[in-house]
Amino acid sequence: MWEEKQNKLVKVFIFRNFVEAFGFMTKVALLAEKMDHHPELHNTYNKVVISLSTHDEGDIITQKDRQLASSIDKLTGGSQ
Amino acid sequence: MWEEKQNKLVKVFIFRNFVEAFGFMTKVALLAEKMDHHPELHNTYNKVVISLSTHDEGDIITQKDRQLASSIDKLTGGSQ
Amino acid sequence: MWEEKQNKLVKVFIFRNFVEAFGFMTKVALLAEKMDHHPELHNTYNKVVISLSTHDEGDIITQKDRQLASSIDKLTGGSQ
Amino acid sequence: MWEEKQNKLVKVFIFRNFVEAFGFMTKVALLAEKMDHHPELHNTYNKVVISLSTHDEGDIITQKDRQLASSIDKLTGGSQ
Repeated sequence: MWEEKQNKLVKVFIFRNFVEAFGFMTKVALLAEKMDHHPELHNTYNKVVISLSTHDEGDIITQKDRQLASSIDKLTGGSQ
Repeated sequence: MWEEKQNKLVKVFIFRNFVEAFGFMTKVALLAEKMDHHPELHNTYNKVVISLSTHDEGDIITQKDRQLASSIDKLTGGSQ
Repeated sequence: MWEEKQNKLVKVFIFRNFVEAFGFMTKVALLAEKMDHHPELHNTYNKVVISLSTHDEGDIITQKDRQLASSIDKLTGGSQ
Repeated sequence: MWEEKQNKLVKVFIFRNFVEAFGFMTKVALLAEKMDHHPELHNTYNKVVISLSTHDEGDIITQKDRQLASSIDKLTGGSQ
């Protein structure tokens, strides 16, 4: 579940291990580069925290953030 | 299903798209580097072909190849 | 140097080790997904072979291939 | 330069763009998985912050952290 925290959309993803977590981060990186809209990524071992906001609009949540969040949720293993 | 072809263990993986295929390849890369046993990786868009053999033993299939194949099959999305 | 072989632009990249080779492949993957134009990638340990052609134009070399080749050459470590 | 902050070894890496930053993170991920010693990774666009400490020893800096820091510094593009 994405939560709104301090003008960001934030979601925590927990995986079986680091390999699964980093494979997921790579997929998120590919989606982000394609959209030219980059998240804040925070990883510790099997945990990935993604924070989304739109810098060019003054660090608020925009349609771009909701679109990237939705694409991330459609990744295989993305809803773990 | 892994097949034996010309002294290699070979398996073809088909994914929904390039993002899923490359995320999977990244996970395979992490497993391989950890084992210090590296596969031949071949990617075209949503297709990944992995070939395993042991160079140090004269390019034959060894226990190391079967072990890496088994680890790859346990990856999330790895049996697609 | 990119070479034209059987209607493909082909270049071989040699790296210090697998870690450097796969880091490079990840950067190529990000460029490719952004352009929505995907290469054929072939990796064995420290060696990466990239082949470019345009499927939608009948598997010939097009401007898209030359553009992706040029972007790949601008990557840090890409001309090794 | 790695700095000691709150019992962690911390270094900030700045890259030309996201593609270079994420390629670097992938190489760090491969080193970490091989050592079975995982850093805290924080990425925003072209910036990567790596924090190292040893959880199993009570979240202090150990030889393992210094070894991973040294391996990271030897990566191509790692000292940017």
